[in-house]
Amino acid sequence: MQQQARGNAIGVIGLGAMGMGIATSMLEVGLPVIGCDVSERAREAFVAHGGRSVATPDELAAECDVVVLVVINAEQVEMVLFGERGLAGELAPGSLIMQCATVAPSYAVALGERLNAMNLEMLDAPISGGATKARTGELSVMSSGSDAAYAKGQAALDAMAAKVYRLGDSPGAGSSVKLVNQHLAGVHIAAAAEAMALGMRMGIDPDTLYEVITHSAGNSWMFENRVPHILKADYTPLSAVDIFVKDLNIVHQTGRELSLAMPVAASALQQFTAASGAGFGREDDAAVIKVYQRLSAFELPAANDIQGESSQ
Amino acid sequence: MQQQARGNAIGVIGLGAMGMGIATSMLEVGLPVIGCDVSERAREAFVAHGGRSVATPDELAAECDVVVLVVINAEQVEMVLFGERGLAGELAPGSLIMQCATVAPSYAVALGERLNAMNLEMLDAPISGGATKARTGELSVMSSGSDAAYAKGQAALDAMAAKVYRLGDSPGAGSSVKLVNQHLAGVHIAAAAEAMALGMRMGIDPDTLYEVITHSAGNSWMFENRVPHILKADYTPLSAVDIFVKDLNIVHQTGRELSLAMPVAASALQQFTAASGAGFGREDDAAVIKVYQRLSAFELPAANDIQGESSQ
Repeated sequence: MQQQARGNAIGVIGLGAMGMGIATSMLEVGLPVIGCDVSERAREAFVAHGGRSVATPDELAAECDVVVLVVINAEQVEMVLFGERGLAGELAPGSLIMQCATVAPSYAVALGERLNAMNLEMLDAPISGGATKARTGELSVMSSGSDAAYAKGQAALDAMAAKVYRLGDSPGAGSSVKLVNQHLAGVHIAAAAEAMALGMRMGIDPDTLYEVITHSAGNSWMFENRVPHILKADYTPLSAVDIFVKDLNIVHQTGRELSLAMPVAASALQQFTAASGAGFGREDDAAVIKVYQRLSAFELPAANDIQGESSQ
Repeated sequence: MQQQARGNAIGVIGLGAMGMGIATSMLEVGLPVIGCDVSERAREAFVAHGGRSVATPDELAAECDVVVLVVINAEQVEMVLFGERGLAGELAPGSLIMQCATVAPSYAVALGERLNAMNLEMLDAPISGGATKARTGELSVMSSGSDAAYAKGQAALDAMAAKVYRLGDSPGAGSSVKLVNQHLAGVHIAAAAEAMALGMRMGIDPDTLYEVITHSAGNSWMFENRVPHILKADYTPLSAVDIFVKDLNIVHQTGRELSLAMPVAASALQQFTAASGAGFGREDDAAVIKVYQRLSAFELPAANDIQGESSQ
């Protein structure tokens, strides 16, 4: 009913690979969007895309009644909402916080209660799909929240997502399902690295191994997606080792809260922790295979293999 | 050149779910096949399919120059080839042993050398695809061996397999690639169970979880295939827990031989071992989730849920 005006813009906090994709997707469908990032370079990049930007979260409050958080972790959520120059206390009543970071479900539940007590809505809305899908507005969103929260967030969700799973009527369910996905994704990447290490240590050509496994019952989405990084020796961080150190620690923390032992996820966490400790934390998560290589007698494919003959 | 005659039949040793499927696939394309199993019931079942059968491996020697071993493990391979009434010493020179069990690659290498020393050929030919694909002659075979071995085994392979991967010119490579597949398959089943346990413990509806994960980056071939057994509470053993106790122990043994630490596979092995210890060894491998259920406060779907309302 209300016309587009001051007070109805959408804020996007965090203009990293995911947030920048989300914010530009919104620009492209004509939504009034304001980006926010501490990094001047990120802000300038968004302005170059035709957007407006601010440096601190509280600056969004006057114009936005929907704010999408695309930050790294719960600590950053705390900072942008409740820290110095934080946003939560400045927003108009009834505004919506759409929280997209992977956080502990227990944190998502508590955050929803805190925001509700401030007359703010919250959508628990972790995202999946990576930077490419963020850029094309085709993310998957594993979400939960009230009907009012969904109604308020509809335009933003339409712009950023190909698929919105509605998993419950309050915060917590979205983060729970995302956590299950991260458990599996992390274990599958570590398993892919470990299995490729086994194959190479036995003398099997890694390209051949990839070909056979991707057509067999041992395949996983992550095996198919990440092993090519190993084969090309390309550890450019599409998603970094340290992301899984973070996410599998949330799995661990949640298991502790629930007294649920998860030894398979625990072993994968240790391998990502070792990769980070060895200095590979900011490389692509497929670099977890370097933990195996450092402890065993096999050679990883080298980048310059690509220039010469293919072993395929 | 030689016409079909005494001496050119194919023996299939082991008429379990896999061997029976293989033997009947051969019958259906008109190959002269003789089945062999210690179980009288299995022999009678094969006769009911129109086949011939014998009770001891040595009885195959007079008529067969190709013998396919579809037994459970290396111990059974030893018994049928070299045990009392074993086959290896009886076969005509130049005959082929096609060995389909999942065994340690080091065992496959040594077996090939022993058979060669007896003037026998060996195809290292582990199979994949389960009982259904065995029955329809559409298995995948991860194989290695000499050109002579492939030539001699061609008709048998054509009858039993949709895809034959030729991975090397001597025994070992086939078993190595199969072992990598079993590493991943075993880890993925344990991870699927663990992740479903996490989701259910957090209160997420398991059918919803299945729907979301199978469309997300956390998916695996095994998650998609095995979790429905949990959702239907159907633990009829299409492939049993004890198979992965066996196969992940071969992974463990091979890691020990190669001094390659594989903590992710090790954690999965412990979960299958626990499932077997709790009495679920002969149930479907998805029953590894019962290890989690016994140690935590969540309910598994019950079989009679199917009769009533669906939660989907």
